[in-house]
Amino acid sequence: MRQPVRLLLRVTASAAAWALTAGVAGAEALASWNDGASRRAIESFVAAVTTPGPDFVPPAERIAVFDNDGTLWVEQPIYTEVAFSLARAAQLAKADPSLLVQPGFKAAASGDPKQIAALSEKDLLALVVATHANVTTEDFAAAAKAWMAEAQHPRFRRRYDTAVYQPMVELISYLRDHEFNVFIVSAGDADFMRSFAEEAYGVPPDQVIGSSSKTRFENRGGRWVLVRTPQMTVDDKAEKPPNIGQHIGARPIFAAGNSDGDLQMLQYATSGPGRRFGLIVHHDDAEREYAYDRASKIGTLDKALDEAARSGWTVVSMKGDWKTVFPAPR
Amino acid sequence: MRQPVRLLLRVTASAAAWALTAGVAGAEALASWNDGASRRAIESFVAAVTTPGPDFVPPAERIAVFDNDGTLWVEQPIYTEVAFSLARAAQLAKADPSLLVQPGFKAAASGDPKQIAALSEKDLLALVVATHANVTTEDFAAAAKAWMAEAQHPRFRRRYDTAVYQPMVELISYLRDHEFNVFIVSAGDADFMRSFAEEAYGVPPDQVIGSSSKTRFENRGGRWVLVRTPQMTVDDKAEKPPNIGQHIGARPIFAAGNSDGDLQMLQYATSGPGRRFGLIVHHDDAEREYAYDRASKIGTLDKALDEAARSGWTVVSMKGDWKTVFPAPR
Repeated sequence: MRQPVRLLLRVTASAAAWALTAGVAGAEALASWNDGASRRAIESFVAAVTTPGPDFVPPAERIAVFDNDGTLWVEQPIYTEVAFSLARAAQLAKADPSLLVQPGFKAAASGDPKQIAALSEKDLLALVVATHANVTTEDFAAAAKAWMAEAQHPRFRRRYDTAVYQPMVELISYLRDHEFNVFIVSAGDADFMRSFAEEAYGVPPDQVIGSSSKTRFENRGGRWVLVRTPQMTVDDKAEKPPNIGQHIGARPIFAAGNSDGDLQMLQYATSGPGRRFGLIVHHDDAEREYAYDRASKIGTLDKALDEAARSGWTVVSMKGDWKTVFPAPR
Repeated sequence: MRQPVRLLLRVTASAAAWALTAGVAGAEALASWNDGASRRAIESFVAAVTTPGPDFVPPAERIAVFDNDGTLWVEQPIYTEVAFSLARAAQLAKADPSLLVQPGFKAAASGDPKQIAALSEKDLLALVVATHANVTTEDFAAAAKAWMAEAQHPRFRRRYDTAVYQPMVELISYLRDHEFNVFIVSAGDADFMRSFAEEAYGVPPDQVIGSSSKTRFENRGGRWVLVRTPQMTVDDKAEKPPNIGQHIGARPIFAAGNSDGDLQMLQYATSGPGRRFGLIVHHDDAEREYAYDRASKIGTLDKALDEAARSGWTVVSMKGDWKTVFPAPR
């Protein structure tokens, strides 16, 4: 994508012939989207910026950013990363019972939903920090992968990394097919997301931006490693645009989110010159997923919903715009 | 590279036919390298990790990191970014003479090499910070580009972005041709480097990691922008591996540097499992470029040179390994 000429060098004539045949499958892009205003707005935008004309944007500048929780995968009844933190806390407390003095570890080890639900926000945050620290980045990634392979979403009874929104996975794929460079920009921990994002969404690790723990460069048994410290920076709200600037170094032309945590990211992406696209996933489908917005504690969508109306962002109705919510079982 | 199947879909049969012909040019990879131990070590490593066998590394894990100053381009007699800062300071002081109370601005505005050389490290750092702050990221990038188009290296009488090492540009290209994902990891300001890195090295903005100014998300005249603040974090020495972890989320298998500022980055890359490659550019060519190592204030190469011998890193002799230093004039 970034070096088309060099890539061409690796293409054999027979592979190209096969690809031309396979290209017919392109008709199935956005297959899980109903043929409504949202889908047509997306297609019209992509056509405008990829076709020679007044709105054309060169591939290098076709940058798209997606929030993760509630935008690409389920964030109810609790953030997936909190579910992971609870499981990891229970596991860590088994090996080191002294951790049980901390309320979060105690509740997690009990496995009692009532004790867990009763945790204060402060205790929960302390739990997330503690379960993400004092571990090498490589061991942390392995722990996240191991948990993901076993854990199931309590309602949908499927692995969390398959409780992703099929229409959004198709949207990422559609944008990449049109030479967009797609990034995830989420309040989730970057390394946690990297443990599944490539397989689930096709987004490689270096295109995942998230909250992060400061790491310490350290020699352990002759090998240099990065050890996660309890010092976390959170990639949310007004911190998202600066992190986009630091990591990507350019203003996106497309941004998708679902909550007030994404407001500033959408403002940043859509206030540049030329054609821009802001997308809000509206959870209005209690039957197939969940219905929540202004009053929800998780994924509050209030200010960003008002601004969507003012700024012409596309508000995607999960109920009306999506034929299916989740991918078919593998 | 990351989505070969999708890329194939865009390839036409005629383009592929042309590419097969053009592929003959592949024989010219590393053309500016003499056929010595350094070149053979590079080729042997790349063959080992890209050929099915015990040392094979899948493309997604073929991550290479390069320092910039002194590794990809000239860093003597002063860092290019300092030259830019001096020029920008003189320009800013013209518009706002009150800045001349600061020693850095005063020396810069005088244009007198003696006054500039007499600046303390503290004054110089203050100058870099001041000339990089209180400006939107977009205006800063434009200023860097404008300067680059005009400025010339005092000795080589060529634009700074052509005072790059042709053999290293070829090395980046060679690695990318072998499906490596190449990043720059430098103490230079990320946005400064991004203003030329794609054209000079073929490395896109989001694959440039560097020092950075904290930015503030702000509305200026109805448009949301990122404004650079004077709060800088420096990407050097033991900060390089954490920044690699945060940005890339994986341990590189190849690292190239030229100074003690790159020591930890090379330690990190080369202490993972499997085949690894550490490369040090040794400036030993006073005639065609410069000769400096342990005693130099700029680009000090002391501890890393000792460790190279212990760890089997490849020390590239500019004098002996490179047929040419700079690219032919455009």
